[in-house]
Amino acid sequence: MNQGKVIHYSQVEAEVAGDGAAGASIRWLIDEEHDGARIFVMRMIELEPGGYSPHHTHPYEHQNFVVDGHGELRLGEEIRPLGPGDVALVPAGLRHQYRNTGSTTLRFLCFIPAEKFRS
Amino acid sequence: MNQGKVIHYSQVEAEVAGDGAAGASIRWLIDEEHDGARIFVMRMIELEPGGYSPHHTHPYEHQNFVVDGHGELRLGEEIRPLGPGDVALVPAGLRHQYRNTGSTTLRFLCFIPAEKFRS
Repeated sequence: MNQGKVIHYSQVEAEVAGDGAAGASIRWLIDEEHDGARIFVMRMIELEPGGYSPHHTHPYEHQNFVVDGHGELRLGEEIRPLGPGDVALVPAGLRHQYRNTGSTTLRFLCFIPAEKFRS
Repeated sequence: MNQGKVIHYSQVEAEVAGDGAAGASIRWLIDEEHDGARIFVMRMIELEPGGYSPHHTHPYEHQNFVVDGHGELRLGEEIRPLGPGDVALVPAGLRHQYRNTGSTTLRFLCFIPAEKFRS
């Protein structure tokens, strides 16, 4: 790790997310390459109204915190509403999808393990 | 991991934080014991106006996201302002302290590694 940092999330470039997503972007706020994160990394996901993430599964968990907007999280067979201040845990191996059902950007943090812990 | 969860952060009890802190509380939003978090955990720290966290160091990093309020982060020899939407990385081993310099609650997420990765 380096000497640390304090930045506003908007200072990090939003990359368009593909692969089954629509109206979706991702900012890698704290990562391995630039920040030396050893164990887990912080991303901000933004979904435009009507936008969604892939409906997929992977062998590692997500930890989410909703910053702005409204939407839903499909978590296995359930659909759960999401709004500001909501915390979500998506366990490893559970099929999931985030969707913006509101009229403003849905913005949420998405923490995942560092690459060596993702299998 | 279990079947996951979606909760509002305020549903988790705020425990008073001691040990060199003042006007400080912590909510363990996603943890090892209740949620089976394997790699990292999510906490919400709340500092009342004038409140502060311990000025201390430990052999693991913090990853923070400021949700509400204003304050400052002492990071080694530097003091950096904190406001909503700010992201902070406190590297392992760097002495640090959070302080609420505003007139409302300073509320920020604080992610740390799971216990087995904290040494």
